[in-house]
Amino acid sequence: MKHIRGFASDNNASVHPKVMEALVNANDGHAIGYGGDKITERTQQLFKKVFGKEVETFFVYNGTGANVISIQALTHSFNAVVCAHTAHINVDECGAPEKLSGCKLLPITTNNGKITVEQISQYMHGFGFEHHAQPKLISITQATELGTVYTIDEVRTIADYVHGLGLYLHLDGARLANAAVALDCSLADITFNAGVDVLSFGGTKNGLMFGEAVVFANAQLADNVKYIRKQSTQLHSKMRYTAAQFEALLTNDLWKENASHANIMARKLETGIRQLNNVKLTQPVDSNGIFAIVPKGTIAKLQEEYFFYIWDESRSEVRWMTSFDTQEEDIEGFLEVLKREVG
Amino acid sequence: MKHIRGFASDNNASVHPKVMEALVNANDGHAIGYGGDKITERTQQLFKKVFGKEVETFFVYNGTGANVISIQALTHSFNAVVCAHTAHINVDECGAPEKLSGCKLLPITTNNGKITVEQISQYMHGFGFEHHAQPKLISITQATELGTVYTIDEVRTIADYVHGLGLYLHLDGARLANAAVALDCSLADITFNAGVDVLSFGGTKNGLMFGEAVVFANAQLADNVKYIRKQSTQLHSKMRYTAAQFEALLTNDLWKENASHANIMARKLETGIRQLNNVKLTQPVDSNGIFAIVPKGTIAKLQEEYFFYIWDESRSEVRWMTSFDTQEEDIEGFLEVLKREVG
Amino acid sequence: MKHIRGFASDNNASVHPKVMEALVNANDGHAIGYGGDKITERTQQLFKKVFGKEVETFFVYNGTGANVISIQALTHSFNAVVCAHTAHINVDECGAPEKLSGCKLLPITTNNGKITVEQISQYMHGFGFEHHAQPKLISITQATELGTVYTIDEVRTIADYVHGLGLYLHLDGARLANAAVALDCSLADITFNAGVDVLSFGGTKNGLMFGEAVVFANAQLADNVKYIRKQSTQLHSKMRYTAAQFEALLTNDLWKENASHANIMARKLETGIRQLNNVKLTQPVDSNGIFAIVPKGTIAKLQEEYFFYIWDESRSEVRWMTSFDTQEEDIEGFLEVLKREVG
Amino acid sequence: MKHIRGFASDNNASVHPKVMEALVNANDGHAIGYGGDKITERTQQLFKKVFGKEVETFFVYNGTGANVISIQALTHSFNAVVCAHTAHINVDECGAPEKLSGCKLLPITTNNGKITVEQISQYMHGFGFEHHAQPKLISITQATELGTVYTIDEVRTIADYVHGLGLYLHLDGARLANAAVALDCSLADITFNAGVDVLSFGGTKNGLMFGEAVVFANAQLADNVKYIRKQSTQLHSKMRYTAAQFEALLTNDLWKENASHANIMARKLETGIRQLNNVKLTQPVDSNGIFAIVPKGTIAKLQEEYFFYIWDESRSEVRWMTSFDTQEEDIEGFLEVLKREVG
Repeated sequence: MKHIRGFASDNNASVHPKVMEALVNANDGHAIGYGGDKITERTQQLFKKVFGKEVETFFVYNGTGANVISIQALTHSFNAVVCAHTAHINVDECGAPEKLSGCKLLPITTNNGKITVEQISQYMHGFGFEHHAQPKLISITQATELGTVYTIDEVRTIADYVHGLGLYLHLDGARLANAAVALDCSLADITFNAGVDVLSFGGTKNGLMFGEAVVFANAQLADNVKYIRKQSTQLHSKMRYTAAQFEALLTNDLWKENASHANIMARKLETGIRQLNNVKLTQPVDSNGIFAIVPKGTIAKLQEEYFFYIWDESRSEVRWMTSFDTQEEDIEGFLEVLKREVG
Repeated sequence: MKHIRGFASDNNASVHPKVMEALVNANDGHAIGYGGDKITERTQQLFKKVFGKEVETFFVYNGTGANVISIQALTHSFNAVVCAHTAHINVDECGAPEKLSGCKLLPITTNNGKITVEQISQYMHGFGFEHHAQPKLISITQATELGTVYTIDEVRTIADYVHGLGLYLHLDGARLANAAVALDCSLADITFNAGVDVLSFGGTKNGLMFGEAVVFANAQLADNVKYIRKQSTQLHSKMRYTAAQFEALLTNDLWKENASHANIMARKLETGIRQLNNVKLTQPVDSNGIFAIVPKGTIAKLQEEYFFYIWDESRSEVRWMTSFDTQEEDIEGFLEVLKREVG
Repeated sequence: MKHIRGFASDNNASVHPKVMEALVNANDGHAIGYGGDKITERTQQLFKKVFGKEVETFFVYNGTGANVISIQALTHSFNAVVCAHTAHINVDECGAPEKLSGCKLLPITTNNGKITVEQISQYMHGFGFEHHAQPKLISITQATELGTVYTIDEVRTIADYVHGLGLYLHLDGARLANAAVALDCSLADITFNAGVDVLSFGGTKNGLMFGEAVVFANAQLADNVKYIRKQSTQLHSKMRYTAAQFEALLTNDLWKENASHANIMARKLETGIRQLNNVKLTQPVDSNGIFAIVPKGTIAKLQEEYFFYIWDESRSEVRWMTSFDTQEEDIEGFLEVLKREVG
Repeated sequence: MKHIRGFASDNNASVHPKVMEALVNANDGHAIGYGGDKITERTQQLFKKVFGKEVETFFVYNGTGANVISIQALTHSFNAVVCAHTAHINVDECGAPEKLSGCKLLPITTNNGKITVEQISQYMHGFGFEHHAQPKLISITQATELGTVYTIDEVRTIADYVHGLGLYLHLDGARLANAAVALDCSLADITFNAGVDVLSFGGTKNGLMFGEAVVFANAQLADNVKYIRKQSTQLHSKMRYTAAQFEALLTNDLWKENASHANIMARKLETGIRQLNNVKLTQPVDSNGIFAIVPKGTIAKLQEEYFFYIWDESRSEVRWMTSFDTQEEDIEGFLEVLKREVG
């Protein structure tokens, strides 16, 4: 590819300078390992300020780790986890949820990445019937893998339904910041205030070098998590360097600044695309992802200039992700290429 | 604790400036995720230069991750893994090896952290007997968890024996650099040249922010590893930041410089301790760890000044680790405190 | 329920007198445990006669056991297993396949319990892509959980397609005998001659007290199975009593006699039902299961007389299974009740 | 081997005639599957009479199944299970406990198969330390794999200690009947009255065709067990045939009659052996197992006549098990052979 920045994924982006600065600043002398340091303690307190004073936060390396820890914390191996068929846990983690939790995943076919109570209810049977994996956890992604966003009411409706059945709600928030910006709400409002029980809070896709946080609505839910994190290979010895990044992200609303920028860039790209005749958007552009069908045979040409991924080869559907470091010139440049190659 | 650096663990140390510099340098534009970037490719080639052109290298987050991937790559769930009872995989990974591989661990009681062919042979029976977990992998740690070091001949003797039975040899090299320095040999000589099949090569304890490498003797052994790494939650999306650290570590022998310094500091501390009447060393100081029995009741006082861990409370045994950033003043300061408090 | 025999399941049936006789005959003195006895050896040879001289047979306790052993034998934990959404492994084993194999199950929505190459092909992508569980095994059920039957050609077509991709074909044959009778073919023709790699061969639903057999197309595929069987808790110490039942089942075509009778009884029931106005068959009656929609509110009344299970409460669909010991009087009696209560 | 009965194992024995009779009697018409039948209900009530009215009983196929269900019911995957190094769960289940529960096994080296509070206490540390698998379950075998028997006081002492730490006590009672007879106490006195939390109650080695029972001290401990049993492949569809065997075993103290006979036969053999100069008993003969060292080179000769297993080849130690169907003539015949071949 010709250009230094593309639209492949927000995890192809760099590390935000303020995050890098926090890493450099944290690099001072010795610190107790495994989270016994001051930065970790401070950042856990910061999470309480942002997400609610009852929450319990555990820093981990990556999103798959955060998700499998969330699942293990709230299930037994004979349970089932209901999610969209597009969910990261269902299609992008190489079976890690099944392997580590032992649970069955029950996928709901969805056009836009979002699931509804009505769809969930299709799986809400067989309770007490020992032949069936027992549903215990519902997992939704926010923003979804298709760039769409649940409203606060949609999340709350699912949470209420789920809790009414004695089940739990997990939110895979690898791109939670983008969703909160899209909804113009706080991180707490779209998660614990809306009934979420456990959250995978993403950092890597919003400017961190690495690092996600598993956040529980309260300490009781998190009772076994420190062991689960360790046994799931997700405990960082030099934890201060994970925590410092999150401290930077939650300080002066850097999370919002980054996500907001990415979303704006996506809107800008969307606006440009709508001028084109031969590119068809397949999803609403709620956050920082754009899904579009382009004429067959044009993809390779486009990729030569700006790297991105094919989403569904059979129908020539592609995905363009923007990120905190996408520049206006990237959008403009790409739109020009699109115009030239696709028309 | 009063002092900015202690002797708790080499993972309480900071990130080496050259490693931090490499991270900053890597922070330039977009890069393909999950290892498709240039730094990763370059660093994998560097591993071939250092460890042998046949090796295959996979970067992961941490030591537990490296070990469980190594085990899974070379076993079925009905296999058994033989190791020292002091092995990190046996006592410090919260059962991750059993959980992720399904294998049984067969621990050998050892006084110095090292195991011998004679001890291993006690478990070499029941092959073909379906009631017994089938031994398939022997795991040794170098330098051991007790700071001792296997000679090249000792490793080769184990490897030959193990291969003669159709088994594999894993080397947990969280502190491999310290061992190589102690033996004054290359990293290849103490690993693949000596018959090791798979290596967990440690970075975090030798100046990295995070990151270990799983290195296989050849591509055939590594056939399934990319899936195992992903399913074990150890695949870093922004891989360039893991690779860049290793590139720094293997450039201009930084690994050796760091490990050498740590070992020298340990020797200095040892020399000082030998002047004291009331501190009894319990292990030879082969690398960067010192194990000693101190008078009961003195530990808390010492910890107030320099943080470190108790090893065996029942016999008042402690562990003091040096690291790449230990300063002469730390050693001198600590020896003074020791003299004052212990005599 | 009033009547001594119902239509709940072929596993509600009794043990066939000849099987019971074989158990009594086997009860003579001591025999080496775990399959080292003469009856087991003899019966394994008998399987070679029936299924082909290359096959390797392992006796186990039950169908879930047979299926999870089949899966484990031919997969790694990062693999995926494709099956009908109605498959026993998908809905009736409480997540045992996921837990024991670690694999992801990829369910195909099906109306009649059968899957096609076209449907399977939807999942045949992402090979080599480490984020996706790698498809490795296709599992079909014969006769299906909906009583339908694959033709030999249908099985062969799937097998050829699957093998062309380097994958394996598992056949869950809990009711294989009923299918073979329906197709008027040999057990070998519908399995290994048609390309099946591993078979769960059912006994319990065809007159045994307990016992299934896992049969592999050849010894190479079965290399690790004895350990897998033991580790999966499916190794019977007094194996002669499992083997003796299978010996009876395969002697003088008892399997065919039993299955044939069950199928005939199902046909008889079907014929009677077709006279009724208010019972609507929902599946072709290929083997020994009948699926039908009855008027809402009539089910409880019917169950008072003859026990059976509701299949889909929402649409008032029920399942009636016949078995080797179903009597003509049972069919006639039940048809009378149906006529009286449903009309 | 020449003789119809040997001393290989009590699971080489036949099925007791009364048990076979119960199976034949149970073979009458249809019965609801998976334990919904009357025999199962009746037998579960019988267990309450025998073991205490609070107990909850689950019938399973075999001992490995019973043990892994017991472990899973009372642990998380990050827990550890402490047991004798000779324990069946540690050496004879091909790693099934680790695979199915994910737990680490912590073996205690023992000379006589029994473990003590003092030995257990060596592992009672690291609570709350996330790096260590957390001890949660202690498992003892009664009678032990070496034929020795814990007194009621010994069991109670362990139970009290274990409960004081918030842990549970599992008793692997594959040969519980032999122990109860040896102690001349009830089955309840040596189990739940002595503080056992969960029991694997053996049937197969005491005259059953197959079948063990997992018995919990109370319903609360058994909350998830029906799912665990199913997911662990241990749920018998035609459950009445498992239950009927246990009903026979617990009726008119058949369990006691069988075990008593086996123990008496062992004593008789022991008495005869003590007359011999060249056979050295290595364990007290508390129940129905005899462990002895015989002159090297004599084993093969002996095995030609009466089959049995070598226990420890290196020291020429063998195991001779008696069973409910051992006859006086077997003992006399074997003693003659011993006298002739060994002297």
